[in-house]
Amino acid sequence: MERLASFERLCLNQATTKKWSLQEAVEGCARAEIPWIGLWRDKIAEIGLKESRQFIRDAGLRVSSIISGGWFSASSAAERHKRLDDSRRAIEEVAELGAGVLVIVGGGVPDRDIDSARKWVAEGIEQLVPYAQSYGVKLGIEPLHPMYAAERSVVVTLAQANELAKRYRPDVVGVIVDVFHVWWDPDLYNQITLAGEHILGFHVSDWIVPTPDLLLGRGMIGDGVIELRRIRKALDAVGYQGPIEVEIFNQSIWDQPGDEVLAVIMERYLEHI
Amino acid sequence: MERLASFERLCLNQATTKKWSLQEAVEGCARAEIPWIGLWRDKIAEIGLKESRQFIRDAGLRVSSIISGGWFSASSAAERHKRLDDSRRAIEEVAELGAGVLVIVGGGVPDRDIDSARKWVAEGIEQLVPYAQSYGVKLGIEPLHPMYAAERSVVVTLAQANELAKRYRPDVVGVIVDVFHVWWDPDLYNQITLAGEHILGFHVSDWIVPTPDLLLGRGMIGDGVIELRRIRKALDAVGYQGPIEVEIFNQSIWDQPGDEVLAVIMERYLEHI
Repeated sequence: MERLASFERLCLNQATTKKWSLQEAVEGCARAEIPWIGLWRDKIAEIGLKESRQFIRDAGLRVSSIISGGWFSASSAAERHKRLDDSRRAIEEVAELGAGVLVIVGGGVPDRDIDSARKWVAEGIEQLVPYAQSYGVKLGIEPLHPMYAAERSVVVTLAQANELAKRYRPDVVGVIVDVFHVWWDPDLYNQITLAGEHILGFHVSDWIVPTPDLLLGRGMIGDGVIELRRIRKALDAVGYQGPIEVEIFNQSIWDQPGDEVLAVIMERYLEHI
Repeated sequence: MERLASFERLCLNQATTKKWSLQEAVEGCARAEIPWIGLWRDKIAEIGLKESRQFIRDAGLRVSSIISGGWFSASSAAERHKRLDDSRRAIEEVAELGAGVLVIVGGGVPDRDIDSARKWVAEGIEQLVPYAQSYGVKLGIEPLHPMYAAERSVVVTLAQANELAKRYRPDVVGVIVDVFHVWWDPDLYNQITLAGEHILGFHVSDWIVPTPDLLLGRGMIGDGVIELRRIRKALDAVGYQGPIEVEIFNQSIWDQPGDEVLAVIMERYLEHI
């Protein structure tokens, strides 16, 4: 098993250090010499877009992607229109911050109608594509774990995300592979191969046992059952060489000092990814 | 949408009234005129096999299935052997109680090795089949929700369960369709069609929003986002006419008096299934 030789692809998704502001996360990465950061829109909004850009530029960080746009599935046309508008604002933010990729989360199931929800996701992406292209921003569709189908994403498998993404060129729409969401899938490695150059991001955490919580139950890399290196090597094999983004929602990790969390991540990264 | 005309297929899975002993659950079904019951082995063990059989016979109930056997995936051969032995005892219990079907749960992921776990499940079923046949007992493979992959079942889709079951005749090995576990699957209706006469059981509950808990977050039928009637009609269309088994793990439902829970189930059953 070949280890990664350096931290050049390591990326901190700022949800992992949730108590840190954007500025604190940027400074934390700079101190730890982590070259990449993944941003959340609520954290950008706290300090403003221009200030965010300045902090990131001053620290010499690169931005992997911004989370999130999409959330297309709503039962009223007015609400769907509103969400598309919000995604257009997100595209502008991505362009302004030079991130390149907007992470697209499909949205949940309104009114017990999962088929319509899935149709609205496809339509929403179709409508966003021209706007994203005009800004040179890619849309990265992230399938979420099936346990989030009702509330967050009716796109629950990499096969679905691939089917949606492959309607477009890979420099326009692609997929995000997050191990926490897809590790259980019997078709995972086949779908990674099929995704190929459409892979726009790679998120890592772990599935811990016992699983403490639906939302905040992700584990530190290496603490769970996911074959992290095997999945990373499958992405290597199809040519993905972008950032490897550590995204962990876990209250006990949030309660630790950010610098200590980054130190553990860097140790585990070489050991497990 | 055609409603069910009677309660002749209604089945109480006794996990829904967890505070009731087997005797209390049997008596509760008899009072409510629910004709079917699904049993758990721990509840049978509490009062003994012969006593269980007598209570069920006296009440004139039919037993849909017994939960559970399987749990094949363990990293040591000795432990796998032990679990096979336990499943053989479960087959004997099913035969003794005239249930017909043993629900098979695959088992989780030991040592970060999901591929081996899946292989052990297939091997375990293969080894159980002759024993089950000698007792006239069917094995019903139940795919569990992917959120249980690590701890309970590496069989997480109906496609996987079908692939395992279809190695055998439908009077030997089949599948259990539990809406809570499979509702999110983009390939669900196709897989129900493929399952066809291999369907040995149908479990219902609901996926509620927000989802309160990984294990005890199932909802009363009608309280969530699952298209219960659509799924039931898909099973009708492939000829499944067996029991419709209400299986709800939910602390707030467990805290209600059993008779009241049964009354709500009967109302919701005609309205939503």
